[in-house]
Amino acid sequence: MKLLRVGAAGAERPALLDADGVLRDLSGIVPDIDGALLSDEAALGRVREAAESGELPVLDPAGLRTGPPLARIGKIVCIGLNYHDHARETGAEPPSEPVIFFKAADTVVGPHDTVLVPRGSTKTDWEVELAVVIGRTARYVESREAALEHVAGYAVSHDVSEREFQLERGGTWDKGKNCETFNPLGPWLVTADEIPDPQKLGLRLWVNGESKQDGTTGEQIFGVSEVVRYVSQFMTLYPGDVINTGTPAGVALGEPEPKPFLRAGDVVELEIDGLGRQRQEFKDA
Amino acid sequence: MKLLRVGAAGAERPALLDADGVLRDLSGIVPDIDGALLSDEAALGRVREAAESGELPVLDPAGLRTGPPLARIGKIVCIGLNYHDHARETGAEPPSEPVIFFKAADTVVGPHDTVLVPRGSTKTDWEVELAVVIGRTARYVESREAALEHVAGYAVSHDVSEREFQLERGGTWDKGKNCETFNPLGPWLVTADEIPDPQKLGLRLWVNGESKQDGTTGEQIFGVSEVVRYVSQFMTLYPGDVINTGTPAGVALGEPEPKPFLRAGDVVELEIDGLGRQRQEFKDA
Repeated sequence: MKLLRVGAAGAERPALLDADGVLRDLSGIVPDIDGALLSDEAALGRVREAAESGELPVLDPAGLRTGPPLARIGKIVCIGLNYHDHARETGAEPPSEPVIFFKAADTVVGPHDTVLVPRGSTKTDWEVELAVVIGRTARYVESREAALEHVAGYAVSHDVSEREFQLERGGTWDKGKNCETFNPLGPWLVTADEIPDPQKLGLRLWVNGESKQDGTTGEQIFGVSEVVRYVSQFMTLYPGDVINTGTPAGVALGEPEPKPFLRAGDVVELEIDGLGRQRQEFKDA
Repeated sequence: MKLLRVGAAGAERPALLDADGVLRDLSGIVPDIDGALLSDEAALGRVREAAESGELPVLDPAGLRTGPPLARIGKIVCIGLNYHDHARETGAEPPSEPVIFFKAADTVVGPHDTVLVPRGSTKTDWEVELAVVIGRTARYVESREAALEHVAGYAVSHDVSEREFQLERGGTWDKGKNCETFNPLGPWLVTADEIPDPQKLGLRLWVNGESKQDGTTGEQIFGVSEVVRYVSQFMTLYPGDVINTGTPAGVALGEPEPKPFLRAGDVVELEIDGLGRQRQEFKDA
């Protein structure tokens, strides 16, 4: 299923894109799309049944904003330098175990919302990423095989990053990852049953129409199942938590000087196979 | 006012410790103690009026658990190496600007709850810290003077840390800061009007009755007002967010070998002037 949330920011209603691409209202079936729903197999079953009945009310998408596809996100765990090609372009050694940093849930906006270049920023950068959405509590998961049972679904995530704040301001990476609007998410939360192999997804990103990133999750150093298993040794993952699993090569940081960091007026588009497409215009904060 | 939340984990009710030290039930006045309350001056006024009336129902504290004094915490921003004496003991240069890392809100437990030593941990460490609770949205705050207007109150925070995970496992510090139960908070949220100068508070911590930390917030490299101003340049702080402002000297990491890291059975007690006292027994996860 392709679950989404539509409406004004903070007042979105749950919806579903059916097999024919028709937008359907889920607000009569479930109150919202969040960790509580994703961990409730009975409620998910009702959603699936309603979807298959073809009787859910149709919504007119014209003029309707798409919000992030997940409400009440807990934490956003991010994996750094997780693609062979991206590690090479940044001049970093491929990590021997996953690099973890955080984004706050309050950085999440809809897939087509405006993204703000922070005040004082000269190095705002893009990163298309596969987001993993947790559906079952994951705590000291023992194997990669067991890890995927904790995944409710996947989404496109834009891990917007300010490289000076991240790397040159004496903090950990979090300092350049948590500016407001820095995590567009969606358009859809695609349930895991529709993504049989999360290591075979193409990811692409364009800036002002020019191709910048064109990779595949097959290049991930640590795949989704290993990331979930690994992270669960250090912290408990709860339903409604998100993992941003890293970005492939092609970010501004990896280009020769003068690096083409983002400015107000730039337009970034990004997509992942089967997970939909985002488009953001950048403005000054 | 000293606000707190009492009852079983996940089912706490709002309460207040009055001027005579009597525990009073607030659940007839406000639904909970959270960012929504702290940003609502009218609701806070009703709480204050009810407190002064002396007519709030009395609660019997016997056998009543104290939860964290804040519900629905957004993000927890942590400031690293923020005391001159602690920077010295860890062998680090005092930072030229605040070091930022994150704890997830799901690590928060009550002040007397059990804390779990993570599986595989050999370097679980203690850190008594002054927590700042945000009451008004702080975004690009222009001065230290303006910064304190965004602070709703203060609390004792225990920034439990696993040093191997934090420093030796190839990630940013977040990896050793987010194990479950790693942030006891409380017992009280003391409103800012009762703390006229947050840079004049003594902080103390004991392990199994032995004094380990005995410092003062006067040793902070970046004081509370500067921390709020600074953080708001990189991310927006919302009502219900928390800042852990760093720890003074005296952690296990700073002791000679063999460093006395925490193990199951250890008891840690900590307190800050005017903000109350915590006590945790450590167990294995």
